[in-house]
Order: sequence, then structure tokens, then C-alpha cells
Amino acid sequence: MESLDRIKIVLVSTSHPGNIGAAARAMKNMGLSELTLVAPAEFPSGVAVGRAASALEILEKARVVETLTDALADCTLVIGASARRRSIPWPMLSPEQLGEKAVGESAAGGRIALVFGREDSGLNNEELQLCHFHVQIPANPDYSSLNLAAAVMVICYEVRKAYLAAADQSSGEGQTGRGREKEEIRLEENWDQPLVSGEQVEHFYAHLERVLVAIDFHDPDNPRQLMHRMRRLFNRIRIDEMEMNILRGILTNIEFNLKDRE
Amino acid sequence: MESLDRIKIVLVSTSHPGNIGAAARAMKNMGLSELTLVAPAEFPSGVAVGRAASALEILEKARVVETLTDALADCTLVIGASARRRSIPWPMLSPEQLGEKAVGESAAGGRIALVFGREDSGLNNEELQLCHFHVQIPANPDYSSLNLAAAVMVICYEVRKAYLAAADQSSGEGQTGRGREKEEIRLEENWDQPLVSGEQVEHFYAHLERVLVAIDFHDPDNPRQLMHRMRRLFNRIRIDEMEMNILRGILTNIEFNLKDRE
Repeated sequence: MESLDRIKIVLVSTSHPGNIGAAARAMKNMGLSELTLVAPAEFPSGVAVGRAASALEILEKARVVETLTDALADCTLVIGASARRRSIPWPMLSPEQLGEKAVGESAAGGRIALVFGREDSGLNNEELQLCHFHVQIPANPDYSSLNLAAAVMVICYEVRKAYLAAADQSSGEGQTGRGREKEEIRLEENWDQPLVSGEQVEHFYAHLERVLVAIDFHDPDNPRQLMHRMRRLFNRIRIDEMEMNILRGILTNIEFNLKDRE
Repeated sequence: MESLDRIKIVLVSTSHPGNIGAAARAMKNMGLSELTLVAPAEFPSGVAVGRAASALEILEKARVVETLTDALADCTLVIGASARRRSIPWPMLSPEQLGEKAVGESAAGGRIALVFGREDSGLNNEELQLCHFHVQIPANPDYSSLNLAAAVMVICYEVRKAYLAAADQSSGEGQTGRGREKEEIRLEENWDQPLVSGEQVEHFYAHLERVLVAIDFHDPDNPRQLMHRMRRLFNRIRIDEMEMNILRGILTNIEFNLKDRE
């Protein structure tokens, strides 16, 4: 069960404490235990306790933080729930693909955050840009807005399915699964360097933005969507530590060689 | 959507009307619309209406009957949710198998009932014996009791997945294999920009290497594995045309702002 402990559920600005309790119950039903709450409207809450039923200990050890960035600081893979198509499309996963990716990354030692937004409006654009992937639950186009705890249930269910399938495979049972997915998981396990955390990636974006300003490529007063596109580009790569050192080194050398520095 | 109308959700002796409302919402989210209530403790109910959100019409046209036998009178296939192993084993389905069987039977003109029992004790033995199959949601053995609406959510989600997979197949496209690959391809087709060619990527690497030399980061006489690692990094992304324009623009601006150019 160890590898499911590396997958946490993050609920952002939840309005109704009942949903927090119901999400905790769904998590425990599916074997997940790590819950982080970003600026909940009401917590702790008796309503949450009632809906959690026998998953009380998940509420008791839930971490409460101020910002999503705090919640993601130690994470190597971040997947956010998104109900709508965005103007700039982001790499998308089905819930099934999410389960496989989260379990594979977790088995390889990563830390994974599955992020859910507000009941009424979901995650905002800034929050969605902190994600490597977005996940969309296939829903009736006439009414695609799931209850928050229902969405957590579906996602945790797919995580458990992937977890059981992986346990099945490693116990040497017959391979009915798809070779391609297994290959992806293996590539992650075989990587030669540890992957960087969300915090390190945020430092990189800040450094990149300073350099883009210094070379007159970026005007923060008229940002257009430059940093948005840069985030989308680099979030599609899972950057490892050596690569991060190289990228930061390149930025430092650029700054050092700028004519304004003379 | 017609074939989903032949699949009904049957809730037996539900205690909490909130669960009826939440189940209705889950049903509409997944495209199901037929709800039958067997001897509910409290219905109609304002609490059910609140939790149903925009699925009110499902509550309004829900059928209320006295016994499970009444609810099943017109059904050709009955599948009941069962949390526990029974002393006499019954034919079992996973939720995924349930989805396929229900959608297949429905397409063949059958009428299907998916039956869920009481919040505290599920379906009793007599009720379970009215079912052709039992379904069990794979859950944490330490806490396998799902909230009723959460269980309805998972089962309806698997029905929708099977429905979409069947719709995909009958849309007549060459099936080279699993729906999953087609889904991925479609996601790529939804990208907002065309992807660049291999040739354009090669021009980018050449430009990048010149800049890395100019900022004293790279010595072609002692290359180590720098360009190798840069290629591995950027090859993990499928770069689109706008991103390529941005990357080349950044490189050009760096060159323009180097002090040696003065």
C-alpha cells in the first residue's frame, strides 16, 4: 500500500465542509490517505466529520495551507481537474491514464498531487498552469459539473484500479495489459536522475522571467501569454535535477554576458 | 443517447434523501436518466432537491414503488451492488465489466436495472437473489463501505465509459486497436497550433548551440554531453509552431544583447 501514500489529494478553496468529509471517505475507500486543504472556507468542521464516516483519521491529519504553491512544493507530478476546454489547450489525461501515470510515478519514488478546485468554478487559470497535466472526467455535455466529492471518488477509483493492476503484474500474473503503458512506466523507473520538485520548477520560472525581461523579450506590463506558454512548454517535460542545473546555469551565464552588465 | 435510457438505477430503502439527490446528479452527469426508488424513507424531499443541483428532472420523474420485484418487472438484466463476499458465491462483475454488459444488452434492446441497497446494510440476501449478476467496486479491505451516491457515481461512470467506447466503434473508423490510443490521438488533434517538423527542431538545436557557445556555457572542443542532454530534454516535448517561434526569438534576443556584440 506504500506507493499510494505518495499520492495526495489537494482540495483548493472548498466552500462546503461536507464535501471535504465525503472526499476523505472516498479516499480511504480507495486506499489513499494524504489530504491537503488549500484555504478551506470552514475547517475543522462537524459536518465534515459526519460525512467522513470511518475516514476520520484522514481529516485529523489533513494539512491545511494558504496557497496551492505551498501544497505542491514537494511534488514531482501535478495533475489538476479541469471541466472546460481552455483557450490554450494543456496536455490532457483521461482518468484511466491519470491512474496509470500516478501509480507509475509513485512506484518510481515521485510525489504526486491530484488537485481539485472550487465547487462552483473549479481551478482558476493560474492554478491550472501549475499542473503538468489536466484531467477531465468524461461527462454528459448537457450537465458536466460533478459534485466535488463525486469527482474525487472517480479519480481515486481509477488510481486504485491502476494500483491493483500494477500489483497484479508485479506478482507475475498473465499479461493482458497494454504494452505501451507499461513501457512508459518503465522509462520513468529507469531514469538516470531524480526529478525536480514543484518548488525548484517555480524558482526556474522566476529566473527565466527575469532573463526574458533583461534581454528585452518580455514586458511584464504587457505580458500577453508568454509565461503562460513557457509554463505549458516546460510542464510537458518532467525535468530532472541535472537538466535543471543546466537550465539554471544557462540563465546565469546569459545574465553574466549581457552588455548592460558592463 | 437512446441506449442509456434503457439502463435504470434502482435505490432500495434509501434512508437519507440527500443520497437520492446526489445519486440523481451523478446519473445526469453520466447521461443516465431513469431512477426508481423502492420504499424510500423520505421522498419527495427538499434535501434531495438541493443535492440534485441541476438534475432536478430526474427526481421529478423518478418512479416510486413498494418492492424490488415491482421495480424489476420490465427488466431483462439485473445487476446488484454487493460489498461483501456472500456465503454462496454469485456470478460477479467488475464495474468495468458491468459497463460493457449493460451497454451491450441495452444496444440489443434489453432493459437493465442497476440496483443499490441501504446505506448501512446494502441489499439483503433475498434481494441479491433477484439479480443476474453482482458487482463489487474494488475497495480498500480496511474500509470498503462506500457512500451510496459515491457507489452510484462509480458505476454510472463505468457505464458512460462503455457507452462512449461503443459509440466510438460504431462511428465506423478503422479500429486499429484500443479506444485508448484513439483518445490520445484526438487530444493531440485538439492542440491549438500545428507541431513543428524535425527539420525545424534541428535548426533550433543548431541555433541553441551557437548561443550556448556565445555565452561561454558550451565548449565544442570539450562538449561533454551538453547537447545530448538538451536534445533529450526538448525531444520529450512535441514543440508547436508558436512555441518554436518563441524559443528562436529568445535565442535571437540573447545574441543581440551580448556584450561582445557591442
